[in-house]
Parts: sequence; structure tokens; C-alpha cells
Amino acid sequence: MTLQTDLRHGAIQRTDLATWSPRAVRQAIRDRAWTGTTHGAARGRLQANLAVLPQRYAFDFLRFCLRNPRPCPVIDVTDPGSAEPTRAAPGADLRTDLSAYRIYRDGEMVAEVPDLKDVWTDDHVGFLLGCSLSFDEALDSAGIPMAHLRDTTSRVATYRSSIPCVPAGPFSGPMVVTMRPVPTSMVVRAVEVTGRYPLAHGAPVHIGDPAKIGITDLARPEFVKFDGIAEDQTPVFWGCGVTPQAVAMAARIPEMFTHSAGHMFVTDLALDGTPMP
Amino acid sequence: MTLQTDLRHGAIQRTDLATWSPRAVRQAIRDRAWTGTTHGAARGRLQANLAVLPQRYAFDFLRFCLRNPRPCPVIDVTDPGSAEPTRAAPGADLRTDLSAYRIYRDGEMVAEVPDLKDVWTDDHVGFLLGCSLSFDEALDSAGIPMAHLRDTTSRVATYRSSIPCVPAGPFSGPMVVTMRPVPTSMVVRAVEVTGRYPLAHGAPVHIGDPAKIGITDLARPEFVKFDGIAEDQTPVFWGCGVTPQAVAMAARIPEMFTHSAGHMFVTDLALDGTPMP
Repeated sequence: MTLQTDLRHGAIQRTDLATWSPRAVRQAIRDRAWTGTTHGAARGRLQANLAVLPQRYAFDFLRFCLRNPRPCPVIDVTDPGSAEPTRAAPGADLRTDLSAYRIYRDGEMVAEVPDLKDVWTDDHVGFLLGCSLSFDEALDSAGIPMAHLRDTTSRVATYRSSIPCVPAGPFSGPMVVTMRPVPTSMVVRAVEVTGRYPLAHGAPVHIGDPAKIGITDLARPEFVKFDGIAEDQTPVFWGCGVTPQAVAMAARIPEMFTHSAGHMFVTDLALDGTPMP
Repeated sequence: MTLQTDLRHGAIQRTDLATWSPRAVRQAIRDRAWTGTTHGAARGRLQANLAVLPQRYAFDFLRFCLRNPRPCPVIDVTDPGSAEPTRAAPGADLRTDLSAYRIYRDGEMVAEVPDLKDVWTDDHVGFLLGCSLSFDEALDSAGIPMAHLRDTTSRVATYRSSIPCVPAGPFSGPMVVTMRPVPTSMVVRAVEVTGRYPLAHGAPVHIGDPAKIGITDLARPEFVKFDGIAEDQTPVFWGCGVTPQAVAMAARIPEMFTHSAGHMFVTDLALDGTPMP
């Protein structure tokens, strides 16, 4: 099924998206032919969290991200006012090429919108930061089952840890982490596999006892939900892309735009960040 | 010989410095007990180029570096006004802990000074960028002879290539590259070894025919000098830390401070960027 056919019939299936090029996925989103999440789209390409900030916060925010590469791996940063991520996806437009966005003002979410065309100004800078969607596939392929890739009711539990981020300017706060139950015999493998993808959060930040990083009850995540952990599994924690949003909200910066949960930006890059045609 | 003894006697030898801690080397420099280059000092630790710019250029310059990681690998960026590189060397002071500095105004070098105490203001941002001193040792240890590490008259020839840097704000221009003659049978090994040190410029940017990257005569480098290349050697080119200085000079920014050639900042980090005690 070609993109043209899909668009004419308005009948794109998620399974179709897996084999599409990143450019075709972004075009379908730009045309509102696909308005869903991007999980599984353009398989093998790096997907990214979006954060858009006023220019006067951009240097502080970029330093924050560089100082905290596990939760905030920097994939691309636009020129002020430009919505084109020239490294991650030349020709793309960050105002229209994600399927849903959130608008925050003074640290509070005030709207969820289908595009940023009316709000983006010459003063805005776009940041693309790594997300773990990409390495979940790599873990699963390596024989470490990621239930949430198959079971649509399954989720990745997310916690506010006691690990302090390295601050920069107004941005500071604890690292938000995701937890994946990993068969204890495969924990080393999980470190090796994810360590290959530093742009998708890379290696874990903690293995084992949740209390060691300030998580008192695994069953009560701060975000998303907990699906349980078996006797022969070890909880493994990775830096989470919610971290930069959380610190920006805590800093109550006057304006920030982000992707909506699951509605990522699909880059042209391979999972390891290599540019691909 | 301890640092205290050295300082008392003012008789530090370069060979002493090799085994000193980075902190001890920086203290000796701060105390003006060592005013020479840092080649061979605190062996096994990452050394860095310094660039200091007014804050209003810092975000553009940082984007430039991130977009051109081969010539400009970012090791650390200070908070505006702070001279402490908190990641690379907590407690260090970029105003005093290098043994010689250059001051540029409007793109021209106007002075070479022993410290930045009188010129550093709350408006300055310090950038530590990778230099190849570190990977030269790794190449040499891997059996790829680096003549300039042993022969004090030998140098690494440096050229302005035709490879364009990815621009950011006022910063743009060609990549400056270094050339090392590598035994042809060891070119692959040279790629593997240097690829492990992305913070020291990483893998080469070109192998072989200099004309392919706009270098018409190997014997006439733009910087430093050419020591010849043998029949069984291949010229291998790496991104060079002169690049960011060259683009900042070309942009004629009103003020920039840098290290003097060979007078690097000695970080606490391992060669691969890992923090070390």
C-alpha cells in the first residue's frame, strides 16, 4: 500500500507505518492522514521527544541537557525561530510533523493541539531529545521481552527518583526514571544492548533495589502504571525523557511546547544516531 | 617527588608531570610553578582546548560545536560568568589553570597572557573542547607510531579542508583537519582506536587522497609543518580543534579567549570522558 493510496482512502493502519520511510510518516502526520501515536512507525529509525522554549531559556536548557545525557540525550537543536531540525530530518517542520502537541504556560499544561502553526514565533527554539521507544525494540529483539510492545494494555512504569540532575540556570530537579522488569539472567545483556543507544537514553542508571534511588513502592509509580514484576525478574531503571519537561515545568518558564505522550517526532536517523538517506 | 617538593624547588620536570594527578598539574600551573605545555601531563586524562566567548554568542557557538562533533567535541560548558568546569574538573578555575592564554578581539590575536584574571567578567562562558593529544597516545600504544610524541622537532601538519562545517548563527566555515601518516596496513586499526575517543575528535574524517578534501599540496600545510610521508604510509585526516577558533575569528566576534597552542586544560576525565576521582 503506498502513501498516496493511504491518503486517498484515509485508512492507514499502524502496521502499514512500520515499513514506511520517516519522510512518508511525517507527511501523513502533516496531512492529518495519521493522527495516532508513532509507536512502531518507520521501524529502525530514532524517534524523539520534542521541547520548544523561548530563546532566552535555550542556552540554559541546552546546558542542562548536556549535563544530564541519560535522561536528556540531545539529538538536534534548531536555530532560533527555525522549525527545521536540519540534522535529524532536513526539510521537516516541527510545527506540523508531530501528531499531537501540548502547550504549557507558567509550568501548567493549558492545551493539547494538533499543530503549533499559530503559536510558533521567531523567538522559539526546538529541541529533539532521545526517547526509549527506540531501544525497547532493540531489547525485545535481543530476547528481553518488552510486554508493552505487544500488549496494548501494558505500560512502562515511571518514577521520580532521588537522583539529582546536574542543574543549569533555572533548570534543576530529580531525574525521572522508567523501570523495566528484566529476567535476572539477562540484566547484563540489557545493559549491553541499551548502552549501544546513548541517544535513546543509553545504559541504565540503576539496577535492583528501588529504595536506593528513593523509590519506596514500585507498585505506585508517579506516572503511567505498574504491571507487576516476577520473582525471577530484576527492576532495571533508565533515565526518562519526562525529566526535562518536569524540570522546565518546575522552573515555571512562561511558555513551553512539547509532544503529547506517545506522539513522537520520527527522525531520519538510525537508532544509533547515524544519518540515513 | 611530591608536588610540595617540586614547588619548593621550582624544578618540575616534564617527565614528573606524567604521573601527577590532574589536580596537582593544575595547581602547579595556577601557582606558576609550571608554565610549559601540557603534552604528557597527567597521562591517561583527557586534555582540552579552551574557548571563552561573551554570553550572547554562547548558544550559537554551542550549537555550532554540537553540529560539528568531529572538529569540536564538547567536553564541558560553564555557566555564564563561572570559570569552573563542573563536569570536567570540579573546583578548577579556567582563568588560572592553563599555563598560557591568547586574547582575540574582532578576530585578531592581540595578546598572549599568563592568566585571564583581569579580563574574565560575569558575561563570559567557557567551553572545553576535545583535543587530539589524548588519542595520539592511544594510537602510539596501539603500535601506530606518532613521531611527534618522541621527536620534539616533529609536528602534526594541519590544513584548511574543503569540508564545510554545518553553520550555526554567525559561525560557519571549512573544517580544519590534522594529518597523520599511518602505515597503510594499520589504517583500519587507526580508525578503530580513535573511534573509541569521540571526545578527542574520534574517528578520521577522511582517508587517502588529500585532493578529495580540497588539499592540493600535502607538503604545504596551512598551520604547523609537514614532516613527510613514506611510500608505505597513507595520509589520514582528523577533525582539528583549531576549527572552532578559526570560525570564531572569521565571524570577527568582538572578544574571545583561548588556550595558547599546546597549553591545554588538563581535565579529571578519562580519555573516553568517564569522570574519575
